[in-house]
Amino acid sequence: MKILLIGASGTIGSAVDNELKDCHEIIRAGRNGADVSVDISSPESIKEMYNQIGKIDAVVNASGSAGFAPLAELTPEKNELAILSKLKGQINLVLLGLNYVNDGGSFTLTTGIMMDDPILQGASAAMANGGVKAFVKSAAIEMPRGIRINSVSPNVLQESMHKYADYFRGFDAVPASRVALAYRKSVEGARTGQNFEVY
Amino acid sequence: MKILLIGASGTIGSAVDNELKDCHEIIRAGRNGADVSVDISSPESIKEMYNQIGKIDAVVNASGSAGFAPLAELTPEKNELAILSKLKGQINLVLLGLNYVNDGGSFTLTTGIMMDDPILQGASAAMANGGVKAFVKSAAIEMPRGIRINSVSPNVLQESMHKYADYFRGFDAVPASRVALAYRKSVEGARTGQNFEVY
Ligand SMILES: NC(=O)c1ccc[n+]([C@@H]2O[C@H](COP(=O)([O-])OP(=O)(O)OC[C@H]3O[C@@H](n4cnc5c(N)ncnc54)[C@H](OP(=O)(O)O)[C@@H]3O)[C@@H](O)[C@H]2O)c1
Ligand SMILES: NC(=O)c1ccc[n+]([C@@H]2O[C@H](COP(=O)([O-])OP(=O)(O)OC[C@H]3O[C@@H](n4cnc5c(N)ncnc54)[C@H](OP(=O)(O)O)[C@@H]3O)[C@@H](O)[C@H]2O)c1
Repeated sequence: MKILLIGASGTIGSAVDNELKDCHEIIRAGRNGADVSVDISSPESIKEMYNQIGKIDAVVNASGSAGFAPLAELTPEKNELAILSKLKGQINLVLLGLNYVNDGGSFTLTTGIMMDDPILQGASAAMANGGVKAFVKSAAIEMPRGIRINSVSPNVLQESMHKYADYFRGFDAVPASRVALAYRKSVEGARTGQNFEVY
Repeated sequence: MKILLIGASGTIGSAVDNELKDCHEIIRAGRNGADVSVDISSPESIKEMYNQIGKIDAVVNASGSAGFAPLAELTPEKNELAILSKLKGQINLVLLGLNYVNDGGSFTLTTGIMMDDPILQGASAAMANGGVKAFVKSAAIEMPRGIRINSVSPNVLQESMHKYADYFRGFDAVPASRVALAYRKSVEGARTGQNFEVY
């Protein structure tokens, strides 16, 4: 399959790349130094990316940002990063990408454990995750031409604990390689409307 | 208690009003003809509302809009109503209202069955519902001064079936009076971080 992988250089993205690259052709996307340049927080940039690459069999997104702040300090403005990037960015990859995905293809988005097992300062990211999960479940029943859509919800990654340990005290971090399997399941399997939890 | 009820004139709002008004002081809010005027899609308007009314014990929101469109016709632009109103509107009622709610008070937001039992054309609304549900669950662990936060997730209402029957074929519609009980449970009970399903 020809797979567009957004966020390919990231912690999760590079594990997914590693998992899939021997069996598939991977087009790597991101803001910097990738095969194709995209900023998912901009619909114009997403349109340009799809225009450039043409038809693909699968879109896998392993990018998306959100702000972290104590709830009492979370403002509408600080909440905007999660809205623009993790939520609308991912949804726009689907809305603007539908016509570029071949019959029987798939979308795989990324959510995260924080919506199910909340952490301090995580309300904005949890919001975005919950929005993506519900969108995926609902959009699945309307996908044309046998196209499927799922999300993967990773626990915190072992490879990210040096950055996030203070937020995720007591979490049983998972290896990126295990998370990458869920993306493979979504791309190569037959299920749709799922949020594959890797907890 | 002094309860701010946004969307008080609506189908759900008027049932909540009816359920609560004998035991509490209700301040009714909405865009038109209410005690206090607010458009939840505007943070400025939310700030003005709270400024006008001062301290309250509970905020109950029964307003919020979303666009309905077949997935293949859903554009980033059409998705914006749900983002602005049902999602950010509700979350901003919390972020901008925290300092106006008395110790031990509560917020009650509104989601809906469509995120759990998807319908055609409902992906945008489902997204907003899922975002609100996850925000509520996460925000609950950080609420200051014993303030609680929940959402109510109604099935389609019997009273709304004349408008929505075509979207909700085969759904077992519930009476508004039963939905209103869940708002009372949220306001007068002790639970937090819940999404009370009335299915
Ligand atoms: N790491 C974890 O433990 C964990 C757990 C659960 C969920 N998640 C979620 O999984 C996603 C990826 O996490 P990660 O830790 O792998 O992130 P990461 O290591 O920071 O990598 C992010 C990747 O996405 C790209 N990217 C960032 N913003 C972008 C944008 N606006 N448009 C296009 N590409 C963009 C980055 O490349 P450029 O900078 O070149 O654009 C990079 O390739 C995030 O949504 C994160 O919240 C992570
Ligand atoms: N009815 C159902 O079957 C059902 C089922 C599940 C979930 N829900 C959800 O529950 C909520 C209320 O539904 P409903 O059927 O009761 O709606 P409704 O009958 O249309 O009433 C909406 C109420 O909200 C106010 N409102 C609308 N937009 C507003 C805004 N931007 N700012 C402030 N107030 C606003 C309206 O008054 P003004 O026009 O004067 O502002 C009215 O009081 C919606 O989010 C809906 O999706 C409804």
